[in-house]
Amino acid sequence: MIYELYYWPTIQGRGELVRLALEEAGAEYVDVARQPQGVAALMRLMRGEEGSEGGIPPFAPPFLRVRGEDAIIAQTAAILRFLGPRLGLSPKGEDAETARALVDQLQLTVSDAIAEAHEVHHPIAASLYYEDQKVEAKRRAKHFVAERIPKYLDYFARVLGDKEWLTGALTYADLSLFQLLAGLSYAFPRATAKAPASLVRLHDRVKARPRIAAYLASARRLPFNEQGIFRHYPELDEG
Amino acid sequence: MIYELYYWPTIQGRGELVRLALEEAGAEYVDVARQPQGVAALMRLMRGEEGSEGGIPPFAPPFLRVRGEDAIIAQTAAILRFLGPRLGLSPKGEDAETARALVDQLQLTVSDAIAEAHEVHHPIAASLYYEDQKVEAKRRAKHFVAERIPKYLDYFARVLGDKEWLTGALTYADLSLFQLLAGLSYAFPRATAKAPASLVRLHDRVKARPRIAAYLASARRLPFNEQGIFRHYPELDEG
Repeated sequence: MIYELYYWPTIQGRGELVRLALEEAGAEYVDVARQPQGVAALMRLMRGEEGSEGGIPPFAPPFLRVRGEDAIIAQTAAILRFLGPRLGLSPKGEDAETARALVDQLQLTVSDAIAEAHEVHHPIAASLYYEDQKVEAKRRAKHFVAERIPKYLDYFARVLGDKEWLTGALTYADLSLFQLLAGLSYAFPRATAKAPASLVRLHDRVKARPRIAAYLASARRLPFNEQGIFRHYPELDEG
Repeated sequence: MIYELYYWPTIQGRGELVRLALEEAGAEYVDVARQPQGVAALMRLMRGEEGSEGGIPPFAPPFLRVRGEDAIIAQTAAILRFLGPRLGLSPKGEDAETARALVDQLQLTVSDAIAEAHEVHHPIAASLYYEDQKVEAKRRAKHFVAERIPKYLDYFARVLGDKEWLTGALTYADLSLFQLLAGLSYAFPRATAKAPASLVRLHDRVKARPRIAAYLASARRLPFNEQGIFRHYPELDEG
């Protein structure tokens, strides 16, 4: 089975949550938009010009196609929910519906935190440059740093407790939490320095997994940058 | 089977998407926080003081419990994903995993639109009053009205095409789209007056379904108000 991931080619963004799951599982996949003519292929699918027998074009990247199948699945949490049991990264079988819902719920909470991290530098409009909403961003960042980062991290630390992984066994939600922690550390190093020690250990455990470590050291892992979701603007990381 | 829904008792909010699914299916459920001592029960579960054998307390309402079972499922999209096949509001069975993912993806896109509708009046912090972020809200609203509402509505109209429902058969994503349209019409009547006719017809089809019509006419349906997600502030509905 070969997966095709479609995501913007120059940023980690939300696509990274899918990449981490595919990499941890050692799945065969193509990061389509990073191949020649890949962005054009992404745009064609998004415009509904091809693909998708079900007739549901994606609203935005990331989206996933199983090579040889028609359906295109968009929305990070839906993609991960779909991939989870196939990749061994969430519970399998009809009787595990509730267990999968709990992983889903954690993933959606990580996704909410990631969305807020983007809102910090774009509090007015995604269509404007950061420079055009800097004043508002600075005001929002104060609240994000003082209220929201601690709230999310304390929650995940409470869920984790003294377990190794959020739900006991490793799931895609742990990989996504790793990415949230990595991103917050990059964008808000001062604020994130106070992250609960148990979460730092989870982050380090994910980072040390052989396939993840190999991925992070490879050219497939794009660096964080100031076009992505997690941006390091020192003026937003103040107290 | 009796479902317990936990959500803030005075607003429609995200809980409304779950209510609509339960109502359309004629499911037996208790809107716990609207019962005597219900908010206290909600708070106990959220603090992890009781419930949840899986040990995953919810981050925020809404959350759902099947009476007699331990697990608490939070996050609107995860709740709906869980309820969908049980309520006949999304495809059933192991071979319908892809079909469910498409419903999931549509739901998550409706959820994104709803989250943005909230960000419009709270662009700086959820912890501040609207009055304390009115200037920024007005600036954000201009973009929401001119760019985001049309983008979302055009997308859903494209998915709907000339079908009766988004994926052919009625699912919870159609009910959620109804709620998005109702909410936008309440909060941004001027901007929403230009909604595609096909979406208005979908809205009206949902509204006319016997159980939904009975629900909307009942005291169980809370009115829109200015504590909820969709708030009518005329100054935010300008061009």
